[in-house]
Amino acid sequence: MGQSMTQNLSINLATLRNGWSFGEMVDGCLRAGITAISPWRDQVASVGLAEAARIVKANGLRVTGLCRGGMFPAETAAGRRAAIDDNLRAIEEAAALGADCLVLVVGGLPGSSKDIADARQMVVDGMAAMLPAARAAGVPLAIEPLHPMYAADRACVNTIDQALDIAEQLGEGVGVAIDVYHVWWDPKLADAIARAGRLQRIYAHHICDWLVPTRDMLLDRGMMGDGVIDLSGIRRMIEAAGYHGPQEVEIFSKENWWLRPGDETLATCVERYESVCGA
Amino acid sequence: MGQSMTQNLSINLATLRNGWSFGEMVDGCLRAGITAISPWRDQVASVGLAEAARIVKANGLRVTGLCRGGMFPAETAAGRRAAIDDNLRAIEEAAALGADCLVLVVGGLPGSSKDIADARQMVVDGMAAMLPAARAAGVPLAIEPLHPMYAADRACVNTIDQALDIAEQLGEGVGVAIDVYHVWWDPKLADAIARAGRLQRIYAHHICDWLVPTRDMLLDRGMMGDGVIDLSGIRRMIEAAGYHGPQEVEIFSKENWWLRPGDETLATCVERYESVCGA
Repeated sequence: MGQSMTQNLSINLATLRNGWSFGEMVDGCLRAGITAISPWRDQVASVGLAEAARIVKANGLRVTGLCRGGMFPAETAAGRRAAIDDNLRAIEEAAALGADCLVLVVGGLPGSSKDIADARQMVVDGMAAMLPAARAAGVPLAIEPLHPMYAADRACVNTIDQALDIAEQLGEGVGVAIDVYHVWWDPKLADAIARAGRLQRIYAHHICDWLVPTRDMLLDRGMMGDGVIDLSGIRRMIEAAGYHGPQEVEIFSKENWWLRPGDETLATCVERYESVCGA
Repeated sequence: MGQSMTQNLSINLATLRNGWSFGEMVDGCLRAGITAISPWRDQVASVGLAEAARIVKANGLRVTGLCRGGMFPAETAAGRRAAIDDNLRAIEEAAALGADCLVLVVGGLPGSSKDIADARQMVVDGMAAMLPAARAAGVPLAIEPLHPMYAADRACVNTIDQALDIAEQLGEGVGVAIDVYHVWWDPKLADAIARAGRLQRIYAHHICDWLVPTRDMLLDRGMMGDGVIDLSGIRRMIEAAGYHGPQEVEIFSKENWWLRPGDETLATCVERYESVCGA
């Protein structure tokens, strides 16, 4: 597991929800030869933004993204305003960490709404409101299209093409985080990735695997190689589209990886990254 | 619950997996004023095809579909041939029942394959092989695009547009069964339904609801009105596309509706059909 092989591997720290502190996660990554991370805001908050930024800088870490902003739809104008305010704070945090992008999980249907078109408009409106601050801070906004099974409760942006439509509408500084878990099934995947490349809007590439069977809709993601996703094939599409940035491992796994020692998880990430991800 | 309101309501008999026999299901539907059904092949087999056909005819029932053919991908040529043979038998059964269409759940990734494009080609090839027999028997083939969360293990056709591409490729006698559960999230839903209408390929309209939270990926579908799907809005799209056929209730609900008395389930179907489905 030499540095040369792992230099383009990043660990989304959600993969390490095993009881480790922020500092322990960073130390574990360094032990495994990994020098890029993507933290969640609660993980940053647990140690404090200033201390997290200090740890990042002291260790020369690349921060491939901050997870996450978004969650724009709300039943009331006050709720939507509060969401925008929270996103403005997320921009500040991403800037302080020197993150490559702020990942946006845009939110689902607010309250008892059944109007997904309306929710989608709230996403566009919320992003438009935060975009000037993001541009001023130099923080790209990476829309993460989520799997359609999350359309109701997590994200009403569900395909790369849909995210790119928003990116084109809003302009510079808005792109996509391509997570294989969410998009692997898309019959238009190759075309959508090529389009994202033409627009130069690929800001992140997340990896994990889709298990068969999937036992939990949120917290049963698989380690690369344990499921059905053609990870090297999708990586080839993404590289052909001009993106050569890190592959970021993001595995929510309540019954498996989150129960294992972090060092075992990280060693497995490195091994699978090298053997199955087309690195 | 007069006949006039329920005449365009059909019950997919998977909704009634509560212990009732085929005959009891039919009697229950008739008590509720419902004269259209869509059985599954195992339900037909449980009473025998000839007896099922006799019951249908004797009661003047409309059969809005037979569930299901499909499951084309297989690791070996022999496996794919066996799937086609099974589909040929399904055509005969659909014809004997006078079904409006044979619903196809096309199948997912065969064996340990990670090549979804290859699986999709196996679907096209399998359908092409069965299509002459379907046309000769006068049985339309309705591809049911399944929700992307089933792409690996049940159906690698996951959007209406993808199904219509196959329908256009294969020609006459191939269309789509639009089940709201599978497609409600699609950002291109309105355009896709309009396209299906222009092509005159809408063969069925299935209804139920998407519950939040969804507790089981297969068997936790909701009764119309209990979830987040804009059923009347989608019905308007479908009617604007020129389809005025039945709305067919198909609810897999292991922990709720399948545990209730069939008469209660059917009465609720009728009430919700009238109150929330834009009938």
